[in-house]
Amino acid sequence: MSGTEVRIGVLGGGQLGRMLALAGTPLGARFGFLDPSEEACAAATGPVRRVPWSDLDAVRAWAREFDVVTYEFENVPPETLAAAAAVVEVAPGHGVLGLACDRLTEKEAFTAIGLEVPPYVAVAEAAELPAALAAIGRPAMLKARRGGYDGKGQAVIGADVDDAAAAAALAGIGRPCLLEQRVPFEAEMSIAVARARDGRTEAWPVSRNVHVGGMLAETRGGPAAAHPALAPETVAAATDGVRRLAESLDYVGVLAVEFFLAGGRLLANEMAARVHNSFHWTMDFAATGQFENHVRAVAGWPLGATDAPRPAAMLNLVGEVPAVADVPADGRHRLHRYGKSSRAGRKVGHLNLVADDVAELEARIAALRGRLRGPLVPPGSA
Amino acid sequence: MSGTEVRIGVLGGGQLGRMLALAGTPLGARFGFLDPSEEACAAATGPVRRVPWSDLDAVRAWAREFDVVTYEFENVPPETLAAAAAVVEVAPGHGVLGLACDRLTEKEAFTAIGLEVPPYVAVAEAAELPAALAAIGRPAMLKARRGGYDGKGQAVIGADVDDAAAAAALAGIGRPCLLEQRVPFEAEMSIAVARARDGRTEAWPVSRNVHVGGMLAETRGGPAAAHPALAPETVAAATDGVRRLAESLDYVGVLAVEFFLAGGRLLANEMAARVHNSFHWTMDFAATGQFENHVRAVAGWPLGATDAPRPAAMLNLVGEVPAVADVPADGRHRLHRYGKSSRAGRKVGHLNLVADDVAELEARIAALRGRLRGPLVPPGSA
Repeated sequence: MSGTEVRIGVLGGGQLGRMLALAGTPLGARFGFLDPSEEACAAATGPVRRVPWSDLDAVRAWAREFDVVTYEFENVPPETLAAAAAVVEVAPGHGVLGLACDRLTEKEAFTAIGLEVPPYVAVAEAAELPAALAAIGRPAMLKARRGGYDGKGQAVIGADVDDAAAAAALAGIGRPCLLEQRVPFEAEMSIAVARARDGRTEAWPVSRNVHVGGMLAETRGGPAAAHPALAPETVAAATDGVRRLAESLDYVGVLAVEFFLAGGRLLANEMAARVHNSFHWTMDFAATGQFENHVRAVAGWPLGATDAPRPAAMLNLVGEVPAVADVPADGRHRLHRYGKSSRAGRKVGHLNLVADDVAELEARIAALRGRLRGPLVPPGSA
Repeated sequence: MSGTEVRIGVLGGGQLGRMLALAGTPLGARFGFLDPSEEACAAATGPVRRVPWSDLDAVRAWAREFDVVTYEFENVPPETLAAAAAVVEVAPGHGVLGLACDRLTEKEAFTAIGLEVPPYVAVAEAAELPAALAAIGRPAMLKARRGGYDGKGQAVIGADVDDAAAAAALAGIGRPCLLEQRVPFEAEMSIAVARARDGRTEAWPVSRNVHVGGMLAETRGGPAAAHPALAPETVAAATDGVRRLAESLDYVGVLAVEFFLAGGRLLANEMAARVHNSFHWTMDFAATGQFENHVRAVAGWPLGATDAPRPAAMLNLVGEVPAVADVPADGRHRLHRYGKSSRAGRKVGHLNLVADDVAELEARIAALRGRLRGPLVPPGSA
């Protein structure tokens, strides 16, 4: 892959694949996608092969067209990934996604490399619930081990929820779960590390996130992510933990981990074995963005620097696609529209911002909330 | 075109089209290209319809798929452009390219709006040469009125070239020419203006260019473009001239004009009715780049700001495609490879740089010249 063009196949054709291609094409990479959806918005950036995940012959035939295959969708079935890996190198590595897709193995991986996690117990059926609730206490969260995203497949077990109601919640999710202590937290943070084939890593500054209705609404990055309860050495230790996690998985690409900041500690919540929504701000306002570094890693190119000296932010655009004219084009606001049509609850784009200081950044965010027609957060949430 | 996706057709599928698509896709534009070449490198960023320029039925059928058609190639035949314009809006406007393709009408347009030009005389045949040489003097340049680019279709008439040798040079070019006074110049500069549908304009800071063998080799932008012989009011007056030129043409998109800086005056040399190589640095180091503003203009969106406070530069990569690893990935160097294979004399990419001050910028450029394997200038030139 030392030639001019590296052909990169991406499993999944959503906005993450689209932004990978937009970051990698200028460097001379070519992209193609595999996605069963009719609406894959990565189609603007490379051909999309529309086949079911389960058509393994088609997956193999598609994968043979590339030098390396990566993925932008967490729920690619393991057999699909294995089919691709049988004919071409898959990065980050085809074992990683299986691990990250199961909240139990994910938490075990966190603790194995020394990252702290909130207390949890695996709960497969209702009979296991009373003992689990006794061990974990209330309030707690029931979270499906597999298949949940953006807050789906979860239930809150409040202080006043009895065992029968908890069992009903488990039945409602309908899948094996973890019961996890609901830790009161000061903030939600995330850390992303890029790891190259030669084992070198680069980590971006921590992101501070606001979720609404289980979906990421806003991220602050660089100096804007600072929180009074978060010491720099805590960030450094957690970042080292994510680096060790990447090493332990012989990971190639961008790996992100979400944390709760609770009592000044960073408790690992979940990982994403791919580029992550909370680092979209890096594409415009870090020396190298997460999409470019993921491409660099999987293509076998050296990683770029990840410094981000100015306060930055990312606002998800959910539901209604804003007009280009609604966003100032002053170099401090960067609008990203995913080429999707408006639909309630759908991520249709995001907006990156930068400022000279945090107060100015917050003022800009407030101004945008007033100007943009589309809701920035899912309908029905606060 | 107020909806989410604007479909933009581009006549020509080279690197300018590719970079238009890379700049416009994040805003929600979709791109397609028409190019007779097998090697159109814009194919990585949208479908390319491979038909001859002369297949006007195919051009019309293609153009119908778009909301607006633009061009990235100066030598699109007028009948091709007219065919597209018969079925869809063409921007910058289908009369502009014809004008810019002929050095005579181009110079007349410059003088009509008050831009100074070097003295010139049209010369169609050898019999006209002696009088023309007497009027213009030696040294002079013979330049083909149509079809020349990157230094092709030109001949120097030195002080020692007699009328017979000049006639031979004219015969060698084989087309109607201008005989132009060879003005001794201190520097080559260029000015680019973006003009929106509503008539608003934005102009980038002037660029200072170095041509080698008739091909652009380097550009300095922002504060790095300064020259001791160039007064700010001279730049402002010439920029106003380019704005008036755009107005006079009811132009929509980016219009660039190259100038000679001669005795402190800016003499207009030629225009490009499209994005221009000497403003590639803006894509990384101006508030809004030329590709994005061209897309904004033709899509009917508001233009972005064009300020560029830091010293910047662009180096063309000619001949051999450099490896990604040869260029530091520190956020101050941005490598752009066009997805072309190496070939002597071919523009295969460019490199944008930024620095905190001009001395640092020049040191970086010198370091790169030592590091990059591929020649930055055409082979055989100084």
